[in-house]
Amino acid sequence: MHVRTATPTDTLVCRLETGQPWRRSLEAYAADHAIDAAWFTGMGAVQEATIAFYEQDAQSYERVHFDEPLEVASCVGNIAVLDGSPFAHTHMVLSRPDGTTVAGHLDEATVFAGELQLQVFEQPLERQHHEATGLALWLNT
Amino acid sequence: MHVRTATPTDTLVCRLETGQPWRRSLEAYAADHAIDAAWFTGMGAVQEATIAFYEQDAQSYERVHFDEPLEVASCVGNIAVLDGSPFAHTHMVLSRPDGTTVAGHLDEATVFAGELQLQVFEQPLERQHHEATGLALWLNT
Amino acid sequence: MHVRTATPTDTLVCRLETGQPWRRSLEAYAADHAIDAAWFTGMGAVQEATIAFYEQDAQSYERVHFDEPLEVASCVGNIAVLDGSPFAHTHMVLSRPDGTTVAGHLDEATVFAGELQLQVFEQPLERQHHEATGLALWLNT
Repeated sequence: MHVRTATPTDTLVCRLETGQPWRRSLEAYAADHAIDAAWFTGMGAVQEATIAFYEQDAQSYERVHFDEPLEVASCVGNIAVLDGSPFAHTHMVLSRPDGTTVAGHLDEATVFAGELQLQVFEQPLERQHHEATGLALWLNT
Repeated sequence: MHVRTATPTDTLVCRLETGQPWRRSLEAYAADHAIDAAWFTGMGAVQEATIAFYEQDAQSYERVHFDEPLEVASCVGNIAVLDGSPFAHTHMVLSRPDGTTVAGHLDEATVFAGELQLQVFEQPLERQHHEATGLALWLNT
Repeated sequence: MHVRTATPTDTLVCRLETGQPWRRSLEAYAADHAIDAAWFTGMGAVQEATIAFYEQDAQSYERVHFDEPLEVASCVGNIAVLDGSPFAHTHMVLSRPDGTTVAGHLDEATVFAGELQLQVFEQPLERQHHEATGLALWLNT
């Protein structure tokens, strides 16, 4: 396990705006406030969502769109620099009126309501190409 | 995205008591200790649970009761003031012996075992009616 | 609810190594760095996983093995001392290419990629046999 000690700076509580994109809202805030590293957890609801599954052999993402209102039962993610801009790596568990769930890597979702805690770190996290998986990982961690 | 910088005060590790209500246990502790704002994550197991789905068009909650033992695979939530008392807004992912899941907004559940980390904040969070969604949100954030 | 105020020490960001065991990687790091108490959240992907469900009446774990690549949509857990060694109590929500999910108590999983935030605490957390549930809980909390 590769480990880095992070220096926590601001602890933010965030309310996502109805109708806005969940992931890009986080990235826009991070870009505007020079946030290069953060960890977040959250919950809420979305109007629709596109989630992705990483095909480990093919090394490519398969996307599935859910065109329906969904609860965000869980949202876990982090902000790191990818190709020079803050990227919000976001995983979500979503649920339907009968409680059934879908989950995965968030491509994008339209916010109905969203609440997050975001812990900003002083030292930047940077994503770089990782040969073995084909993913952009924190290689300097 | 609406953002507020929170000042973390106490970091609490909590063990929920077997047979007690999951959400009301958090709210009772918050009320007894004048906690007006906090963020938590947790896991454990429950003896039964009632979860809810917010109908975004109808602006009302639909409840589903699961009268069975369930693992709490994830619990994410926060404490804020609603109508003068601490309310624990809690989302959960629950699972069965074969691994299948149900998830959503927690109405209430009976604890089998529960472990949480709760980060208390200095500044109160307050919920007020949000016209566009019909939900009680942190409008001052 | 049983509550203890924890003193946060190091905040760690962790990248799990491809091919390594998810839970034992955390425990090995904790053992090597004398970490007796911590809270973590995380996400990523695994190559296969064994999850467990605690039969509340029988007081024993039933295991289910999923021999397939899965996204880790959520990972919540903590480190405490069990029988003299750090134990990483880990719950996970896992998902498939079509978004369907399985979840529960993590027995073990092989990392494809994993990212975690781990908050270390100064005071040890210790697990001891809890009569009513048959589980090893933080009885001194």
